[in-house]
Amino acid sequence: MDAIQDKVNKAIIYSEPGTSATEVIELPLEAPGPGQVLVRMHVLRIPPFQHPKEMLYSGVCHTDYSICTNAWKVPVMVAKGQIGGHEGIGEVVVCGPGVSHPTIGSKVGVKYIASACLSCRYCLLGMESNCVAAKLSGSFHPGTFQQYCVAAANYVTVLPEGVPDDELAGLAPIMCAGITVYTGLKHGNLRPGDWVAVSGAGGGLGHLAIQYAKALGCRVVALDVAEKNLLCTDAGADEFVDVFGFTQDTDLCRHVRETTGGGPRAALVCSSSNTAYSQAIQYLDTTGTLVCLGIPEGQQVPIQGASVALLVSRQLRIIGSKVGNRLDANECVYMAARGAVKCHYQLRKMNELTQVFNDMEEGKILGRVVIDLR
Amino acid sequence: MDAIQDKVNKAIIYSEPGTSATEVIELPLEAPGPGQVLVRMHVLRIPPFQHPKEMLYSGVCHTDYSICTNAWKVPVMVAKGQIGGHEGIGEVVVCGPGVSHPTIGSKVGVKYIASACLSCRYCLLGMESNCVAAKLSGSFHPGTFQQYCVAAANYVTVLPEGVPDDELAGLAPIMCAGITVYTGLKHGNLRPGDWVAVSGAGGGLGHLAIQYAKALGCRVVALDVAEKNLLCTDAGADEFVDVFGFTQDTDLCRHVRETTGGGPRAALVCSSSNTAYSQAIQYLDTTGTLVCLGIPEGQQVPIQGASVALLVSRQLRIIGSKVGNRLDANECVYMAARGAVKCHYQLRKMNELTQVFNDMEEGKILGRVVIDLR
Amino acid sequence: MDAIQDKVNKAIIYSEPGTSATEVIELPLEAPGPGQVLVRMHVLRIPPFQHPKEMLYSGVCHTDYSICTNAWKVPVMVAKGQIGGHEGIGEVVVCGPGVSHPTIGSKVGVKYIASACLSCRYCLLGMESNCVAAKLSGSFHPGTFQQYCVAAANYVTVLPEGVPDDELAGLAPIMCAGITVYTGLKHGNLRPGDWVAVSGAGGGLGHLAIQYAKALGCRVVALDVAEKNLLCTDAGADEFVDVFGFTQDTDLCRHVRETTGGGPRAALVCSSSNTAYSQAIQYLDTTGTLVCLGIPEGQQVPIQGASVALLVSRQLRIIGSKVGNRLDANECVYMAARGAVKCHYQLRKMNELTQVFNDMEEGKILGRVVIDLR
Amino acid sequence: MDAIQDKVNKAIIYSEPGTSATEVIELPLEAPGPGQVLVRMHVLRIPPFQHPKEMLYSGVCHTDYSICTNAWKVPVMVAKGQIGGHEGIGEVVVCGPGVSHPTIGSKVGVKYIASACLSCRYCLLGMESNCVAAKLSGSFHPGTFQQYCVAAANYVTVLPEGVPDDELAGLAPIMCAGITVYTGLKHGNLRPGDWVAVSGAGGGLGHLAIQYAKALGCRVVALDVAEKNLLCTDAGADEFVDVFGFTQDTDLCRHVRETTGGGPRAALVCSSSNTAYSQAIQYLDTTGTLVCLGIPEGQQVPIQGASVALLVSRQLRIIGSKVGNRLDANECVYMAARGAVKCHYQLRKMNELTQVFNDMEEGKILGRVVIDLR
Repeated sequence: MDAIQDKVNKAIIYSEPGTSATEVIELPLEAPGPGQVLVRMHVLRIPPFQHPKEMLYSGVCHTDYSICTNAWKVPVMVAKGQIGGHEGIGEVVVCGPGVSHPTIGSKVGVKYIASACLSCRYCLLGMESNCVAAKLSGSFHPGTFQQYCVAAANYVTVLPEGVPDDELAGLAPIMCAGITVYTGLKHGNLRPGDWVAVSGAGGGLGHLAIQYAKALGCRVVALDVAEKNLLCTDAGADEFVDVFGFTQDTDLCRHVRETTGGGPRAALVCSSSNTAYSQAIQYLDTTGTLVCLGIPEGQQVPIQGASVALLVSRQLRIIGSKVGNRLDANECVYMAARGAVKCHYQLRKMNELTQVFNDMEEGKILGRVVIDLR
Repeated sequence: MDAIQDKVNKAIIYSEPGTSATEVIELPLEAPGPGQVLVRMHVLRIPPFQHPKEMLYSGVCHTDYSICTNAWKVPVMVAKGQIGGHEGIGEVVVCGPGVSHPTIGSKVGVKYIASACLSCRYCLLGMESNCVAAKLSGSFHPGTFQQYCVAAANYVTVLPEGVPDDELAGLAPIMCAGITVYTGLKHGNLRPGDWVAVSGAGGGLGHLAIQYAKALGCRVVALDVAEKNLLCTDAGADEFVDVFGFTQDTDLCRHVRETTGGGPRAALVCSSSNTAYSQAIQYLDTTGTLVCLGIPEGQQVPIQGASVALLVSRQLRIIGSKVGNRLDANECVYMAARGAVKCHYQLRKMNELTQVFNDMEEGKILGRVVIDLR
Repeated sequence: MDAIQDKVNKAIIYSEPGTSATEVIELPLEAPGPGQVLVRMHVLRIPPFQHPKEMLYSGVCHTDYSICTNAWKVPVMVAKGQIGGHEGIGEVVVCGPGVSHPTIGSKVGVKYIASACLSCRYCLLGMESNCVAAKLSGSFHPGTFQQYCVAAANYVTVLPEGVPDDELAGLAPIMCAGITVYTGLKHGNLRPGDWVAVSGAGGGLGHLAIQYAKALGCRVVALDVAEKNLLCTDAGADEFVDVFGFTQDTDLCRHVRETTGGGPRAALVCSSSNTAYSQAIQYLDTTGTLVCLGIPEGQQVPIQGASVALLVSRQLRIIGSKVGNRLDANECVYMAARGAVKCHYQLRKMNELTQVFNDMEEGKILGRVVIDLR
Repeated sequence: MDAIQDKVNKAIIYSEPGTSATEVIELPLEAPGPGQVLVRMHVLRIPPFQHPKEMLYSGVCHTDYSICTNAWKVPVMVAKGQIGGHEGIGEVVVCGPGVSHPTIGSKVGVKYIASACLSCRYCLLGMESNCVAAKLSGSFHPGTFQQYCVAAANYVTVLPEGVPDDELAGLAPIMCAGITVYTGLKHGNLRPGDWVAVSGAGGGLGHLAIQYAKALGCRVVALDVAEKNLLCTDAGADEFVDVFGFTQDTDLCRHVRETTGGGPRAALVCSSSNTAYSQAIQYLDTTGTLVCLGIPEGQQVPIQGASVALLVSRQLRIIGSKVGNRLDANECVYMAARGAVKCHYQLRKMNELTQVFNDMEEGKILGRVVIDLR
């Protein structure tokens, strides 16, 4: 503890926001303030007869790419030097003043929402993602692409005990991707046996959505490009639909409806394609729910085909959902920790983040990338 | 009872679907089949020292107009001779075979959904309006614009006891307009003190929506044209917004947001205007709910401004809602029967229905029209 | 169809209600009336190169025992000749007048609630088990201990397609035991990761409760006598507690609380022991839920220790639950059909029912008994 | 602000816990710490042509009496010098470090729960009353029987704007009694038109429960002694039942069931009588809910008649409820502030608290007592 000032903290910064340029730098360590903890983004693994081995992880979300490159064309970009990342797994190494929980040694997750006031009207309603005072990891607030991260003690997610060390890297993407799809599924009002469509099913969010849906007892029809068929099927999808396998959208929608005996009760659109949304509103079961998760880039347009007449006559629901709250986080991390959900990921080094962003842009990533922060 | 065949049943039929033409004709009485009751759309009132007086009522819904004139341009119109109407109040005069409830003399309401199977997946979920075997009063199934109406015993709504006779006419519009807005409010997840916007607030649905919202403890901002200000305020609106009082939509939306301290938690769009919908999605509070009730005519378009980026970032919800189920009906009729909600209506004669439809087209109706079926 | 009158229907009747005496008799077949179907309690299995083989199944519930022997000492017993049983799996062989769903050949389950009106206030609230017009299979209404059973078309549960024939016997107990515990779990407001206690965990209900709880993502502490440890662990229990392994109830309760990090969020008491109830109210987590399923025999007493002061200060909830509704049935049958839940059962012959009842009385049954009705 | 140290703070202390002895003393003012505010338990009223007039209020709850006199016979009593009270209305006069909301001048309520961690598992579930770190106003933590009270900024309830000064005293009892009954009603799953029984209907909790139930659209049967009939009827009760007007409990229960057409959907027991509880479980409608609010003194016993057989066969629910959370508080204060609920109270002086406690013991209080803290 007292040796904190001697430690070096390596971090990846966005060196030219608006592009995918990143740089690995060294920073002085910051002590946690009141109500905060210092989380080391690593865990020591000491197998018998081996030297200690460090593991330092942060998942890479498509949102990191969008923030770094300003893909959504927001007017105010993050500043040069922003530390990105919001899917961190680590261990508490210092507790700030007044912190009694979690304790030193607790393994915790750091999420997209870095902290929330817990008192505004949105927090009271459990909508912490829209807290009026929310700070966002990796977006105008230092994120998890660093070896040590200061975090709000009452907002980190304490991992269930007993997770084997070699499964910790796979929990990193749960902190954003997992929470996002799990919360999205909740909005679907799904019941065991219900069909759910996952669009963008082979991506970071999608392949987790398939697994959470199965774990909740649902049947899944997965939609993605043909190359992702295997990943989707491995994740448990009951049916796979090649989105480029139909000459017309109406054919695809008819196929989805037939495959699912009338249409899925909910559709989780994890992709950022406007077409995916307009398909979903067409193939949904009557009285079903379209859950919006992926945000299309480029010009913002309403969902084609989602006319009021359609929504009313078939009593459809469209729900925008953004990550989830602390309770959602606890639940979905528990499910992953007990093995019901496994993230498909590849480890990449700190100095490869720009390449990762470039791969994302080209749609080359299967599942998720996790950065090894050593 | 045995004199049924001697009775004359007067009905209003659509004599030229596609236009507003109607005609009053006489029909033979039909006996109710198994599981059905015969409802007389009237109630006898016998004040002291007066002759018995009959009251026979059915509300006129904008949907009746749309069906008769084919305003929605559906490919298959109702046939010539269709008996319209779906907001009837009457008294059970004959019970078909096997009917033990309601009993002869029960005062009941006949609704838009004439009958539902109670067993399909939508019925099981409480979404009876989308029952796969639903029959619709006044649309391919005889409605309430007649003096005697055969109805499903398990689908009529039994009125609470003790409603004074002279308040029965006002309950007729509750059977569709009331249920529609009450169910819509339920979708809004509203809590006492929450602001709710009612768009089209001075219409048949809107002025009831204001009252139900107030009865549930909410605050209401009513939006309509200036001439309907008084009706809205009488109905209990806390604030009135003249929708033509702003040069730009953004000004109107800013005004609504400021008036309600950040935007209403829910917006009930009772109007059939596309603009009303695009305004609502803009002025809603973050994490709020847009409830779609009124169906725009003309070309079907998505809600302008309702981009996925907006829905996700502000976690908004859009819910299509169509009337309600039997439980909803019981609740909202009870509220009206105890005086919490009063329909503003004018009585018109059977042979005036065409004129009523024409008035509707020109937006001349304040509140609701109820047809006196004597 | 036309050959129905030639068929023989073998049934087990209670030949001396008040005792465990039963008798296998032959009865004429009854044709289904309006809204009914005739269900044959069997399925043909035709493996390659083998003769057709019939399988006819009904589970035996502890309630059957209680009804037959009048264990609850009710004033009015079922009459001599009552056909018991309410956990039947079979195939629709005749549809009565007006029945379009299910169709001939549909595999269906017959439940404890044989039919409900779907219109009384309890049915409207989804509490069909308390329908004012409910008929109960095997209790004053012919049950499933027979080869052919007339059933309400809108109340049978249609099995998911694709269940292998040799798994059908295991679905029989789902029709009562499965629905009961699954619905009970719903009352527990459980979330993934929550601990749930199952008391009487090695019995017919209990070993299914363990599996449903695990399938819903919960952790389970199973309570029963030591001999049932293995069955409970096989079913997936995380912890087993030998209820006779403690000299005092307070020790047992402390142990349960410690094992579960403060007490389970819900306790499902499947046993019919008053002690099990008084333990549960003590070991529950603060703000937890005690779900009552098993009914103690003998003198009726309140739950010892469940003082109002305890309930209020710790905000505990006690919920009485009786089987479930049609939606619950669909869900839990689906879960069993996809393999998430497997009933542990032994097959017994029709003429062994009295022996089965005697074994039940002595607590000798592990899991469930299913009667082979051939 | 800088003059705080010059102010005198008068407080009522319990001078001999275990008896009803109290004393009015003067204390030095304490400055609020981080995250706290100093609330002055008064509001200035300046009518035209009059001198400013101070109003300083705190309601007196039966729990204050129980704490002061140790009526519940708890092993560890509060210490001599305890400042009681937990129903305070006042104005923020100082904000501690880091407090941005509420602001100086905000009118706020101080509740039974003085502060909660907002992070433990109970807080996450919205069960803040059972927060593991909760501090209780007036019980081992200074309460509202004083002129200045330090309070948690994120736990006070900000009053709606525009409440007239002369209605502020009536809001004091809402801070505990109002929240308690409003939250209790929520547990009843009530719908407009449902009957609810309020037992102890003429007391501080009961007369508010009647009004909240009516405001939510329910029908109320009020149970109390004959002298409280008028207060209950004034509060809006549809029916009044004199609990001493029947020779046998079974007669009373039959009467309640008949009056309400089969029994109330929920019973709120606000009295602290064991008999009230055993009656409620008997007269409830099938599938109804008994909400436990009042805590019987003396020996703790289970609810007589609440056998498991009864709970299961009629699917009854028993819910222990203790005050409510911040969302509940906002809602019920709003309802009172808009006039839907009015507390019936009498003002008493600071030096009369012992007499008030004695009157409580003898059951002499009609409605609520509010202490004028000037």
